[in-house]
Amino acid sequence: MQAASKWSKIADGNVVLEFIDVTLRGCAQVMFQNNPLTGLLFFAAIFVGAFAEGLPAVAFGSVLGTAVATFTGIHLKDRKSWKAGLYGYNGCLVGVALPTFLEATPILWLCIILGSVVSVIVTICIADILKTWKVAALTAPFVLVTWTMFLASYAFGGMNITTLPVPNLPHDLIAHNSNLFDGIHWLDGTFYGISEVFLFSSVIGSVLLLAGLAVSSLWAAVFAFCGSLLAILVATVLQAEHSNINNGLYAFSAVLTAIALGSTFNKPSWRVLIYTLIGVIFTVFVQGALNTVLAPVGIPTLTMPFVLASWLFLVPNKDVMPAHRQ
Amino acid sequence: MQAASKWSKIADGNVVLEFIDVTLRGCAQVMFQNNPLTGLLFFAAIFVGAFAEGLPAVAFGSVLGTAVATFTGIHLKDRKSWKAGLYGYNGCLVGVALPTFLEATPILWLCIILGSVVSVIVTICIADILKTWKVAALTAPFVLVTWTMFLASYAFGGMNITTLPVPNLPHDLIAHNSNLFDGIHWLDGTFYGISEVFLFSSVIGSVLLLAGLAVSSLWAAVFAFCGSLLAILVATVLQAEHSNINNGLYAFSAVLTAIALGSTFNKPSWRVLIYTLIGVIFTVFVQGALNTVLAPVGIPTLTMPFVLASWLFLVPNKDVMPAHRQ
Amino acid sequence: MQAASKWSKIADGNVVLEFIDVTLRGCAQVMFQNNPLTGLLFFAAIFVGAFAEGLPAVAFGSVLGTAVATFTGIHLKDRKSWKAGLYGYNGCLVGVALPTFLEATPILWLCIILGSVVSVIVTICIADILKTWKVAALTAPFVLVTWTMFLASYAFGGMNITTLPVPNLPHDLIAHNSNLFDGIHWLDGTFYGISEVFLFSSVIGSVLLLAGLAVSSLWAAVFAFCGSLLAILVATVLQAEHSNINNGLYAFSAVLTAIALGSTFNKPSWRVLIYTLIGVIFTVFVQGALNTVLAPVGIPTLTMPFVLASWLFLVPNKDVMPAHRQ
Repeated sequence: MQAASKWSKIADGNVVLEFIDVTLRGCAQVMFQNNPLTGLLFFAAIFVGAFAEGLPAVAFGSVLGTAVATFTGIHLKDRKSWKAGLYGYNGCLVGVALPTFLEATPILWLCIILGSVVSVIVTICIADILKTWKVAALTAPFVLVTWTMFLASYAFGGMNITTLPVPNLPHDLIAHNSNLFDGIHWLDGTFYGISEVFLFSSVIGSVLLLAGLAVSSLWAAVFAFCGSLLAILVATVLQAEHSNINNGLYAFSAVLTAIALGSTFNKPSWRVLIYTLIGVIFTVFVQGALNTVLAPVGIPTLTMPFVLASWLFLVPNKDVMPAHRQ
Repeated sequence: MQAASKWSKIADGNVVLEFIDVTLRGCAQVMFQNNPLTGLLFFAAIFVGAFAEGLPAVAFGSVLGTAVATFTGIHLKDRKSWKAGLYGYNGCLVGVALPTFLEATPILWLCIILGSVVSVIVTICIADILKTWKVAALTAPFVLVTWTMFLASYAFGGMNITTLPVPNLPHDLIAHNSNLFDGIHWLDGTFYGISEVFLFSSVIGSVLLLAGLAVSSLWAAVFAFCGSLLAILVATVLQAEHSNINNGLYAFSAVLTAIALGSTFNKPSWRVLIYTLIGVIFTVFVQGALNTVLAPVGIPTLTMPFVLASWLFLVPNKDVMPAHRQ
Repeated sequence: MQAASKWSKIADGNVVLEFIDVTLRGCAQVMFQNNPLTGLLFFAAIFVGAFAEGLPAVAFGSVLGTAVATFTGIHLKDRKSWKAGLYGYNGCLVGVALPTFLEATPILWLCIILGSVVSVIVTICIADILKTWKVAALTAPFVLVTWTMFLASYAFGGMNITTLPVPNLPHDLIAHNSNLFDGIHWLDGTFYGISEVFLFSSVIGSVLLLAGLAVSSLWAAVFAFCGSLLAILVATVLQAEHSNINNGLYAFSAVLTAIALGSTFNKPSWRVLIYTLIGVIFTVFVQGALNTVLAPVGIPTLTMPFVLASWLFLVPNKDVMPAHRQ
């Protein structure tokens, strides 16, 4: 970690390098890490995933979103949170999500800039509200801003929908008769579950993300992988649609729940492990429930299942855990 | 009440009897009573109702849910709330509601267990949030957990819907020309309104519930009956669908609002009576509104109209009531 | 302002005049002004607009709603808020909104009375909740009560829908090819945006509203006008439906956001101006988003876009603004 402390010293002395440092940390905070190298590996993963899916705008959007949000955060008093990248990660995800589901027109780039600025305001707002219960804003600012933009895109001709789900009433999924575990791609699905945190399916991208986690916290990488695997198992037993399971769509929120409950806001222990296990399993139910709720309005859940499940399990944390990190 | 204090002494001395005592109190807390005899009568009512409707799983589900939630609560620090059954009642309702609307498969029994465990976590979470405004969690944990499971059942082939409403867009109910009061079954409707708190329509079951209330609080029984009657009158004047009125579906939330506002969180007085009256009438509107809101996603309101109306009237309680019990 | 202080003295000495004074202030508080003359001009505007649209019930509803809510507020301890008209404005809007979208039957007049009473309870409830974060209830009580009534009207044959939107699934609005600015009525649209705060489109009504604002606060009038104009510009660039833009339907929430952020809760400054600018632009997105969300349940957004956007920008106010008025 000598290189790290050396970099920190250099970054502190130069306003441009400091800005780059904080932007990288902003990207790393999507998975709760305060580490510029993690951010670099995450950005690399996003570029790999975005270009593989033929959506370069997603890669550039992630950089633009993180930078704009980080720049917006400069004007705030809370210097410590800013340096840790805590004003940047929601902008990063706004920049990833908008061009994934909407056409990358000039208006959309303006929307990414506006959305990233507003994500900072939402972050302060939610942090202010939640500090009463000592819980973090998580990715709620990203989800709320992006949902607003997606929903607005139905009303505005200047925002062109490419891949948002068509609004429809929920239908009951009928169980298939074949063997439960037939057709499940366990390993690919687990990797895709991790990379779907950034809305793409890529094994290489996922390996880069795990590497990024590992350089900052080995436990975080372990919980991410196991959380994804467990979520796929639960979704399989509950007989969710196979294509969704295999694309990691029942796992990405569970990945974040697992890191948050298992390693970020608690020290690993048996009690924590069981609590995280229940949290991850319940996240899969919340994922299914939100899929149903959002069907009539034609927007994806994004990471809201993670946010809701983790808030639910983090507020009682101090009543449930014997010794607990704040 | 000598028998009661004798039982308390016996129950305190034996870990199994204590667990049974708290489980019974958990059932009684569905209607705000801290009394094991009330719980026994409530369980009897549930068994009568469940078997009458040909759904024995509902009866066993209620016992399983209350027991699992009570067992989960053992591990918490808040011993006093646990002894009063306050960690059990939401599990009781989860155990009643899931087999009422979904097929009783092995996966569903696992869902009842998971739902009951999570209901305790939601209870702590909501209690923690609401203590800032000195308001109770009411049955919100039950509703949120059960809604999650119901909504998820649309996405999971392993959870089979039996009687959930089919998702559809709301239609304007056109007024019928006949006499307003024709075809309303006043007495049966009032009784069904009380038993529908536990999701079944049974006069005998309802009488058992009233008896259970009366042994603990006569006022609670009076408010339950009058609340149900008033709700049916309001729904009739507003010209709701007759079959829904007659099945008590506009009354069960009003019953709980009446008990909560009239007897649990206030001492009866003229001012309280008027406040409760307005609260009960407004609950009927909230019931109609939630019916409309939930139509596109195909889930029942459960007791959410009661929760929303009662929170709305309980938060300002101290500003409105001269002397008030906390 | 000698006449004003003279009137205040007279009003204080007579219980009937005091009630009229507070009722007028209640109407003025719809746009954050504590001034009986403003209220008088606002009522005049409502009468002009209501009669022009052939809906006299709207005019009488506004008077009834404000009076009932003001009368309900008499019974509360918080005398200061009552005298400022802060318990009246939501009742005013309830009285305007119900007869705008529902048939003015005897049951509807009872609903206006009930809704106005309940709006006071919701006001206390929300004020109690939000005081933790030092934010006002704004028009949330009006919106929540009116939404409840509108939604309930689908379930109740006794409440007849006249102009509520038919519930339907959202459709993607396709961009028109013509010149962006063709067919936009800039001046009329800006005026309509102001009068649509009270749910009608009238230039004369709008001028009366601006006059009412100006006699109390010139800044408020300026922010109202500029907020409306800016919102129409943003909606035009985003290519919203032209008829909606021209009727001021993308502007009325922005008008309130502009007054609230620019003049009521902050002193005008460059920083405040930029913050208000972002707030107004984002309000247009929230308006589009809520139009989509509410489509399946067939209710209008009312002023909820203003409420959500303003809460979002007001909670962080103290973290963002150097010196700020509370």
